[in-house]
Amino acid sequence: MRNNKSSIANRSPRAKPTRQSSSVNRQSPITVPGFKFSGISAGIKKSREKDLALICSENTAVIKGVFTSNRIKAAPLKLDIKRIRSNKGQAIIINSGNANAATGRQGLKDAEKMAGRTAEALGVDPGLIYVASTGVIGCPLPMPKIKKAIPELAGRLSPRSIGEAASAILTTDTFPKIYSNKINIAGREATIAGIAKGAGMIAPNMATMLCFLFTDLAVSPVALDSALRKAVDSSFNKLTIDGDMSTNDMALIMANGVLKNRPVTKNSPAFGKFERALSDVTLNLSRMIAEDAEGASKLVEIIVKGARTDSDAEKAAKSIAGSTLVKTAIYGQEPNWGRIIAAVGYSGIKIAEQKISIRINNTTLVRRGTGVNKIPKNLLSPKEIIITVDLGIGKGTAKVLTCDLTEKYVKINASYIT
Amino acid sequence: MRNNKSSIANRSPRAKPTRQSSSVNRQSPITVPGFKFSGISAGIKKSREKDLALICSENTAVIKGVFTSNRIKAAPLKLDIKRIRSNKGQAIIINSGNANAATGRQGLKDAEKMAGRTAEALGVDPGLIYVASTGVIGCPLPMPKIKKAIPELAGRLSPRSIGEAASAILTTDTFPKIYSNKINIAGREATIAGIAKGAGMIAPNMATMLCFLFTDLAVSPVALDSALRKAVDSSFNKLTIDGDMSTNDMALIMANGVLKNRPVTKNSPAFGKFERALSDVTLNLSRMIAEDAEGASKLVEIIVKGARTDSDAEKAAKSIAGSTLVKTAIYGQEPNWGRIIAAVGYSGIKIAEQKISIRINNTTLVRRGTGVNKIPKNLLSPKEIIITVDLGIGKGTAKVLTCDLTEKYVKINASYIT
Repeated sequence: MRNNKSSIANRSPRAKPTRQSSSVNRQSPITVPGFKFSGISAGIKKSREKDLALICSENTAVIKGVFTSNRIKAAPLKLDIKRIRSNKGQAIIINSGNANAATGRQGLKDAEKMAGRTAEALGVDPGLIYVASTGVIGCPLPMPKIKKAIPELAGRLSPRSIGEAASAILTTDTFPKIYSNKINIAGREATIAGIAKGAGMIAPNMATMLCFLFTDLAVSPVALDSALRKAVDSSFNKLTIDGDMSTNDMALIMANGVLKNRPVTKNSPAFGKFERALSDVTLNLSRMIAEDAEGASKLVEIIVKGARTDSDAEKAAKSIAGSTLVKTAIYGQEPNWGRIIAAVGYSGIKIAEQKISIRINNTTLVRRGTGVNKIPKNLLSPKEIIITVDLGIGKGTAKVLTCDLTEKYVKINASYIT
Repeated sequence: MRNNKSSIANRSPRAKPTRQSSSVNRQSPITVPGFKFSGISAGIKKSREKDLALICSENTAVIKGVFTSNRIKAAPLKLDIKRIRSNKGQAIIINSGNANAATGRQGLKDAEKMAGRTAEALGVDPGLIYVASTGVIGCPLPMPKIKKAIPELAGRLSPRSIGEAASAILTTDTFPKIYSNKINIAGREATIAGIAKGAGMIAPNMATMLCFLFTDLAVSPVALDSALRKAVDSSFNKLTIDGDMSTNDMALIMANGVLKNRPVTKNSPAFGKFERALSDVTLNLSRMIAEDAEGASKLVEIIVKGARTDSDAEKAAKSIAGSTLVKTAIYGQEPNWGRIIAAVGYSGIKIAEQKISIRINNTTLVRRGTGVNKIPKNLLSPKEIIITVDLGIGKGTAKVLTCDLTEKYVKINASYIT
């Protein structure tokens, strides 16, 4: 089990989080009552690594989702967006190694067939099956391989196999991302867990972000949707430049209610607790994504305060996070704050140069628009870097997560398909 | 002299262009009647390379300029923006190695002193001296070194030293950028020439772009301003993401009128010819900047057509040009068109997936939203790559220049100040 040393983690004091990477797992695996998981290799990836995952609830769950804002949407998303209007779902099948995006009518038919074959294997209504894909864009899915593998995939479902599923959804990620919280709702212990995949450089270019969340709580569709949107907005959306999303990004949450609690609604006393625990799960998964970004050597948190508005602060923070010059300077451990102030300058928001202060970790580099003299050596040697920019003209704040830009990132992305 | 094999160059059929890189110059240098140049090392750069340049007209010239839209503007720009309201100038002093940006009141005083000392050395009114700087942000200028060097800099002025000036304004550029055109105006041969520096990755992050243009034509301030804005807009501005500019970017043009022509106004028959020849100079200088971008191995032209509007086409083109995933794929010579279509998808413009076609050089990769089967090997081996995206829904077009993203870029920018 990875140590949870993050300062952001565990915001919800009553939550009991469990963070798990199956590759280093020496404790019993995370389980969520009423959910089973599996992950196998269907031969979609040339590497023969796991590439097909299945998540299945023992009953019909309430399901909600958020999907990429990219105007090019992969075929499985088109299918899911239609199906999710029913608020009902029982299983999600996910393949990695092929995005099934920009694949035309054939792509849609293939996504439907994936769902159909899974429904057969599980003996449930095909309308309750959701599909996700990630990988190379523009190639048809190898359907014979997938169809052949689905019975085995279904046969291996187990409550203890969340790690297998978390591994099978990865692309260039270096470790599976699993996080679980437990909260007490009216005397019963409820579980909220999730798996995710990311990689890519995050901002300004996002590899496909997939996240699947599960809880044994009963939650009303409206409450589930509201909590999911808030959780995604405060975590995964803080990793990206607005609108700069992959064709395949999605987050789905299933609440199967096997806890037999009175369903959580937006008016329940338990709603706030549920919402915070869910946001804590997505926040921790998003931190794991940032840590594991392709080739990244450092996790970078950018805090902007003193902006006219929160929206201004977010624009400045994302402008800094999206600057390849800032990212390479951090990689090279150079406290080149000129690149930070320049990124603030071109973010388009209102600023007053002579009021800007910049800190890296606990060291002030710029006070009221002018550089201070002594910058300690090794300022950028820690693995986690916090850049704080105080614009000094208001109360707007924002926080964005990103990573550095390394030669390894270029190497990975220069030879992705060959 | 570098061969001019560019397909974009020489748009103006009657112009006689001369493109020159002083390092490989075996012909007589480019001269512009009435202008003298010099470039020396003042010791601002640790490398002892040239870092101080002077451009001087023999008389008071009409001067116009465009300046960065970054809200953080370097001190010299603040000075120049005030002075240029007079439309009059005689000399420009430029240092590299230090941007004199985010340097507070001291920075402004230093820029004024640079101009003042230059005015003394040349014996002209200080109000006619303009200043430009490029280099690291946030360090005070080494004024004693600069003041000491100015008399020598002025003493070395020569009509034949454009190459020295072009070398002294460089930072991480690998060759000086000089381009000259001659046009016939009412039976006289007029010269329009310029020098520039760029480097940086161009979009999405721009190193400082400096451009200085000179002509012996007499041109009215209004006509000069109009022609300059058009030229910059169709060249340097096509290298950048909107608003994503350095603190120091500027382009200045001086017209000294030593040709004794009747001044070119916006109503003159010669105005169109002048405007085209000037745009040709800036276009060629911008191509040299793209070719010489930090660590770049390929020059990439992105053409978007069939958009609803020209503005939509430009958004899509800049979205593709700004995608680090597209840039790394080109570097790795992978025809991963999925990244291109994804960048179009998140550009925010209206599209119809099933109408998009994509070509690289002369090979169609996507026809009506779906990939075609056979992609020839070596498709991305040429040094110049043209990506053409036809959105198929309108008549809007745009063209943007960029380059690939390489490990060398990361290396250069990870160790810029240390």
